[in-house]
Amino acid sequence: MFKINDNFLALNQNYLFSQVARKINAYMNSNPGVRIIRMGIGDVSRPLAPAVISALHEAVEEQTSCDTFCGYGPEQGHRFLTEAIAAHDYQARGIQISADEIFISDGAKSDTGNIGDILSLTNKVALTNPVYPVYLDTNIMSGRASIDNIELLPCTADNNFVPSLPTGNPDMIYLCYPNNPTGTTLNRDQLKEWVDYAKAHGALILFDSAYEAFITEDDVPHSIYEIEGATEVAIEFRSFSKTAGFTGLRCAYTVVPMALKGENAIGESVSLNALWQRRQSTKFNGASYLSQRAAEAVYSPEGKKQIRSTIDYYLRNATVLREGLKKAGLNVYGGVNAPYIWVKTPDGMDSWSFFDILLEQCNIACTPGVGFGSAGEGYVRLTAFGSYEDCLQAVERLSLLKM
Amino acid sequence: MFKINDNFLALNQNYLFSQVARKINAYMNSNPGVRIIRMGIGDVSRPLAPAVISALHEAVEEQTSCDTFCGYGPEQGHRFLTEAIAAHDYQARGIQISADEIFISDGAKSDTGNIGDILSLTNKVALTNPVYPVYLDTNIMSGRASIDNIELLPCTADNNFVPSLPTGNPDMIYLCYPNNPTGTTLNRDQLKEWVDYAKAHGALILFDSAYEAFITEDDVPHSIYEIEGATEVAIEFRSFSKTAGFTGLRCAYTVVPMALKGENAIGESVSLNALWQRRQSTKFNGASYLSQRAAEAVYSPEGKKQIRSTIDYYLRNATVLREGLKKAGLNVYGGVNAPYIWVKTPDGMDSWSFFDILLEQCNIACTPGVGFGSAGEGYVRLTAFGSYEDCLQAVERLSLLKM
Repeated sequence: MFKINDNFLALNQNYLFSQVARKINAYMNSNPGVRIIRMGIGDVSRPLAPAVISALHEAVEEQTSCDTFCGYGPEQGHRFLTEAIAAHDYQARGIQISADEIFISDGAKSDTGNIGDILSLTNKVALTNPVYPVYLDTNIMSGRASIDNIELLPCTADNNFVPSLPTGNPDMIYLCYPNNPTGTTLNRDQLKEWVDYAKAHGALILFDSAYEAFITEDDVPHSIYEIEGATEVAIEFRSFSKTAGFTGLRCAYTVVPMALKGENAIGESVSLNALWQRRQSTKFNGASYLSQRAAEAVYSPEGKKQIRSTIDYYLRNATVLREGLKKAGLNVYGGVNAPYIWVKTPDGMDSWSFFDILLEQCNIACTPGVGFGSAGEGYVRLTAFGSYEDCLQAVERLSLLKM
Repeated sequence: MFKINDNFLALNQNYLFSQVARKINAYMNSNPGVRIIRMGIGDVSRPLAPAVISALHEAVEEQTSCDTFCGYGPEQGHRFLTEAIAAHDYQARGIQISADEIFISDGAKSDTGNIGDILSLTNKVALTNPVYPVYLDTNIMSGRASIDNIELLPCTADNNFVPSLPTGNPDMIYLCYPNNPTGTTLNRDQLKEWVDYAKAHGALILFDSAYEAFITEDDVPHSIYEIEGATEVAIEFRSFSKTAGFTGLRCAYTVVPMALKGENAIGESVSLNALWQRRQSTKFNGASYLSQRAAEAVYSPEGKKQIRSTIDYYLRNATVLREGLKKAGLNVYGGVNAPYIWVKTPDGMDSWSFFDILLEQCNIACTPGVGFGSAGEGYVRLTAFGSYEDCLQAVERLSLLKM
């Protein structure tokens, strides 16, 4: 009989968000009429920018005629988009990244998951703890790592959410800044330490900056390539999901610099850009043309203004929530350069107990921090992606919290 | 230094279609003013169906308001689409496949490539020869197989393009019918032999039926699940790319029946549906909402009529080409239940030489059969996805062919 991939059986079978959804549903069933404010899942809620809507209608209209119909595009992405990204997200910030180093995809989740395809299964892995579960689970699935042999780098209030450099000599290091789930960041000097470490130790940094558009402070780098030498050690993942509300449209990109080389089994240097190009050409057929035209519109002058205003809307939510939580006597982190707020549970309570209290006393749904890793125990995550009105309402409810 | 996945270095570095493009460009540069009729790459050329266009505009309009905005959908696909597929593509044909067994994706290329994730790397693989390169390359990339230990099942005029059953006891068998590249099919009895073989030998059939909409003959199954017992041995891949012209929009689906079980390392039975669900939830975030609404419209009464008329257009092209090629004295296969025509080169000529002759004498671009595998040597592939006018023109040019 054919065999399945046994590594899948080592995965945690309780998917965090399903567990959260079950709890909420059970509560709603026993408390009909109650309105839950959902601050658990990190999905956006605001409409798409008008410039994006126009671009979409126009791209749809192109599909009505043979002359403008667009079939297969390049697997790497349409040139109009890779060039816009290179110009606006990199060159305009003084970073030398070219269109050939940019790969368009259907989502950063796909790319952070699939990137392992081009890397050896013998590489050692380091992750922050708590962490976005995809980094961990995809390494378990492929057999590169078991939960026991991954180096976990705790990020808690004790170290101000700044991970210590690894000690186990990992080959692949996943970093996500601004961070999901903690909403915290690394400043330029802190990130430089990681780039220098990677260079000195021959490690690869997998840098997820899906939330860079939410950065408000000057000293926080938007791209790892702002740090000198990073093009030799890092792959960067970006997404239009949170930047421009594309969670339903699906469009993201990954930067694999020409300068980035790994080693083959006999120690020869191999370009990662060429490997990723081959991987994408073989197992992917390009992101939707419509989504790529929509993404292009994000870089138009109106598009830029419109998405900025939506991000400011979410950031105002974050401020309201932060202040409300503080007034309720809680210790809060994040929410300044990120849409996530990371809340310390009161009195050493565990994450799920505080989840229950917020649900029952305030009718607010959050995500238990322990769901993102052991170092998330004693925290919960709230997102600022809802409506302003809901945030005000949530704060009002939080003021009545009895602890 | 971190290591790359060395399996990538075992891949054929000359990507077939790049090589073809280079040859065409070189010819055009030395022969300016010549109009090449491109019958190489299998991309569609007709506009999207009006029903699809309307659905797209409507879905775009939904994104302008908070009340109708759609963010993350289920990773498995929106229920409105999985249910439409189950009803129209399966239940209407008397096949018991339910929405829970259907997984929407961005393309059959992604799915046929990614499906290996859930299967053991120790499984043995069998492929037809010639073959769609993705099946081979993704197995090489993952390290499951090298070109030397994959069982290749030749399909040539000698066996009427019907592969013999394997002799090497493979665990995974890739079948694509109607076939890319040969355009040939298996009839019901012939496919039944494969299902029976898989059942008897504990093998998994990976059945690619991306071209089923082109079937015109009654005895050719549209789905492998028309064969009794197939839900216990087969995964089926389908796509809207060729059925409805979605090569640019990106939408496909994969059927993983509940009845389908593999074995884990200690011989216990494991549901593949659950594994694929876990894989997709972890490494994919759903196909674009717009593409899913567009796909739903394919099943409306108008949508059905409109895509039928486009398929008939391509099939008429295929007939014109077949007849023209025959009149030119060539032996042709396929093109009756598929948009591909497989042409035997004259006088035992090799594929690339005949490619050159068609390019130089007729200004027609085809794909050399040998690019799809060694048993494709001595054949070329023509596609019927161009315009009717070009097909007539191509036939006129073929009538002047000097061999």
